[in-house]
Amino acid sequence: MTVRNSNHYGIAGYYAMMALEHDCIGISMTNAAVLVVPTFGRDAMLGTNPISVAAPAGQERPFVLDMATSTVPRGKLEVYDRLEKPLPMGWATDETGTPTTDTAGVLENFKQRAGGGLLPLGGAGELLGGHKGYGLSLWVDVFCAVLSGAAYADLVYPRAPDGNPLPSKIGHFFGAWRVDAFRPVDEFKAAMDDLQRRLKEAPKAEGQTRIYTHGEKEYEEAERRSEEGIPLNPKVAADLRAIGEELGVEYTLD
Amino acid sequence: MTVRNSNHYGIAGYYAMMALEHDCIGISMTNAAVLVVPTFGRDAMLGTNPISVAAPAGQERPFVLDMATSTVPRGKLEVYDRLEKPLPMGWATDETGTPTTDTAGVLENFKQRAGGGLLPLGGAGELLGGHKGYGLSLWVDVFCAVLSGAAYADLVYPRAPDGNPLPSKIGHFFGAWRVDAFRPVDEFKAAMDDLQRRLKEAPKAEGQTRIYTHGEKEYEEAERRSEEGIPLNPKVAADLRAIGEELGVEYTLD
Repeated sequence: MTVRNSNHYGIAGYYAMMALEHDCIGISMTNAAVLVVPTFGRDAMLGTNPISVAAPAGQERPFVLDMATSTVPRGKLEVYDRLEKPLPMGWATDETGTPTTDTAGVLENFKQRAGGGLLPLGGAGELLGGHKGYGLSLWVDVFCAVLSGAAYADLVYPRAPDGNPLPSKIGHFFGAWRVDAFRPVDEFKAAMDDLQRRLKEAPKAEGQTRIYTHGEKEYEEAERRSEEGIPLNPKVAADLRAIGEELGVEYTLD
Repeated sequence: MTVRNSNHYGIAGYYAMMALEHDCIGISMTNAAVLVVPTFGRDAMLGTNPISVAAPAGQERPFVLDMATSTVPRGKLEVYDRLEKPLPMGWATDETGTPTTDTAGVLENFKQRAGGGLLPLGGAGELLGGHKGYGLSLWVDVFCAVLSGAAYADLVYPRAPDGNPLPSKIGHFFGAWRVDAFRPVDEFKAAMDDLQRRLKEAPKAEGQTRIYTHGEKEYEEAERRSEEGIPLNPKVAADLRAIGEELGVEYTLD
């Protein structure tokens, strides 16, 4: 099923994972605010257009892929900006479409709509497969927007002639496959366990101690945080306190 | 639908494109011979596991994504080997799992099953998104093999205890979505045209003259070759001649 004329839908994996408790494989995609430059392009024409696929397992954790089809999402640039670190080559381009390490410059170009943007997974050009990330992003736009009748490419957050924003026209795609339509569920889950174990137990690259499967890091972090609490940035805590005061809601922290 | 206990199925896009004449969107995936190293791994554990998605358009050509989920397929290394060129960093690792530019070394390691292999789309580690290419590859293995009951990961080309090859156990996944289940076909095709034109007409990066959409290069090459013929490597031509002589089939070239 598709959704049209929507807005930011949060976490792609949240929806894909809804299929798990029904012994289904879930998929979720969305298009998004225009930040990503197509291969050989100068200006952002696509969103970070994430894809999430979730498949149940038995003893092991479910497989949960949840990935922006750009090399990194915009938030990563903001982290580097706060740390005053240069960007790795392959994350973003400047306003001429040339790969750059200038963190503040790329973020400023976003604000000014001055050109450039994030690079698709695989980076600039075709040498390291940037056209593949660009293709995955286009796939997401076809399923979320062309199929649904939502807006695509650079049209997703339309503006009135006076420059004021109009209602957003983001699109989403959701799907689920019943495992038992293909194979007994317990056989599927046993094979999912074995597949994931084979990978995790495979020999490690020099200097590495662990091979992950997708979703594992996030499940472990969720467990840690439900025990130890969620660390809150002081600025976010101050914002929450101010909003609470404004609305007359008491601010309490254990 | 899925297929199990199969072998190399040729071109992923061939099957996805079968949906086009029925005004459907097609998808095709297959797992494959073990050549790709998982993120932080030392040894190849996955195939180049391609994904193809084809969607019809109106005046423009169909969108046909057909991509290995590794940075490059093995054939690209063989081309570099013949040209005696070093590999770009991000294509492959040596036998310790460390990225390398040693073309002949990687190919020799494949032959000897000595470790190392191709890198997933995004390259080594997580900095440029290698874990995403690894995740796409795992997704393909889940759909093609875990769902079908075929062999997955490093099990796809099994060997007997004496080392001799046993029948291969490759798996495939095929699907199609009816466009008219979502939206009138002519509206969909008009939006596909507009989406592709917007991208192709977008401003180009400095030094670039063209932005492609997926399938365009291959459609143009097919047209050129149906007019001008297919260039044949002299070695391939000699092989064909030899096979022809052996089988009593006359070798003719216009």
